[in-house]
Amino acid sequence: MNAASFYSKAPRHLVAVDCIIFGFDEGKLKLLVIKRKVAPMAGEWSLVGGFVQADESTDDAAARVLKLTTGLDDIYMDQLHCYGEVGRDTGARVISVAYYALIRIKDHDKPLAQEHGAHWLELENMPELIFDHKKMIEDALVKLRDNAQFHPIGFELLPEKFTLSQLRSLYEEIYGRTLDKRNFRKKILSLDVMEKLEEKDKTSSKKGAHLYRFDADKYDQLKRKGLVFEI
Amino acid sequence: MNAASFYSKAPRHLVAVDCIIFGFDEGKLKLLVIKRKVAPMAGEWSLVGGFVQADESTDDAAARVLKLTTGLDDIYMDQLHCYGEVGRDTGARVISVAYYALIRIKDHDKPLAQEHGAHWLELENMPELIFDHKKMIEDALVKLRDNAQFHPIGFELLPEKFTLSQLRSLYEEIYGRTLDKRNFRKKILSLDVMEKLEEKDKTSSKKGAHLYRFDADKYDQLKRKGLVFEI
Repeated sequence: MNAASFYSKAPRHLVAVDCIIFGFDEGKLKLLVIKRKVAPMAGEWSLVGGFVQADESTDDAAARVLKLTTGLDDIYMDQLHCYGEVGRDTGARVISVAYYALIRIKDHDKPLAQEHGAHWLELENMPELIFDHKKMIEDALVKLRDNAQFHPIGFELLPEKFTLSQLRSLYEEIYGRTLDKRNFRKKILSLDVMEKLEEKDKTSSKKGAHLYRFDADKYDQLKRKGLVFEI
Repeated sequence: MNAASFYSKAPRHLVAVDCIIFGFDEGKLKLLVIKRKVAPMAGEWSLVGGFVQADESTDDAAARVLKLTTGLDDIYMDQLHCYGEVGRDTGARVISVAYYALIRIKDHDKPLAQEHGAHWLELENMPELIFDHKKMIEDALVKLRDNAQFHPIGFELLPEKFTLSQLRSLYEEIYGRTLDKRNFRKKILSLDVMEKLEEKDKTSSKKGAHLYRFDADKYDQLKRKGLVFEI
């Protein structure tokens, strides 16, 4: 077979990206979702997504979609999985490459998101979603839990300065269970990857709670030594 | 936008699958590769792959390609990553979903593989490969190492009955470094996931080496209790 017919005889497919965008706000893990504008399933809740264009990589497509909906770029985003079942999109055969991102909700451009009909909904009160988007979220959550257990990925979701209570409540949300306050404090401090600041957060008590900052350099050094970041 | 134009206006892409097929034979980690038949890069070494057809999922396409080249089905195969860079295939824009599989070389149909021009080449002596196939192999190896560290994935590459030396040499190949014989023995036996058989392998010594069998049920029980399978 010559090269021209090798490529031209092969079928062509619509390829989409779908973004599972996690945020953490007011002690809750949230997901950015939109109401779908076109049939089938118009008006239903959907992950933010779009088709991969001829001149862009799948990674670039995901970054474009994220920027369009949130105004954010240069944020942590990772490929989750390629969903290639034949009937997964009921409108046409679409192969979808899913990405997941973690963002600080406070950093993102709320008006821009609203303009695009995007909403932050609580993970634990997620409505029905179109197609296989629920499965995508479940898979992303498994990956998020894995990553949170062995890598300090959770810090991407917190403000730059945070209290130990905020950090614990984030891990509680990711794991979906309550963590013992004392044990968590002991474990996380023993990892020695955070800098304790002089500053205090006084929003929840008169005495205040110490603020911490994640020390990425220290973490990288420890990782090279073979640290297992295990919560 | 109506549904018809929503889908019809989006560009369509060639979508391929590429399979990184690891095997273990005579103490060496090997990869199944073929000589590409079409231009560009005809005659060069390539992973086994093919285009995703209209009526098949990406998973099914990968299974089809694997079966076609090795005669094997029903084997461990997992999606690795979707490679979606624009210029990755120099013949046309092709988005490729890579899968990786672990097979016992002895089980596979060698004549069938040869018929398709497929060869088992040693990982440490891998020739140049087309496109981004080298990167795919590197990524698969990272995943294989990760999986081998925390899951008993390596057992897929060994014969059903194996000696501790064979198991150690497999892990040495996967990690690319020598493991201490005594420590390895102690660690792996302490996991208590293998059944020691009465039978001995006498090919390498008169006294013989005990054969073991992996006990998947035991492993599953331990995993539910939260075992970390760490080598």
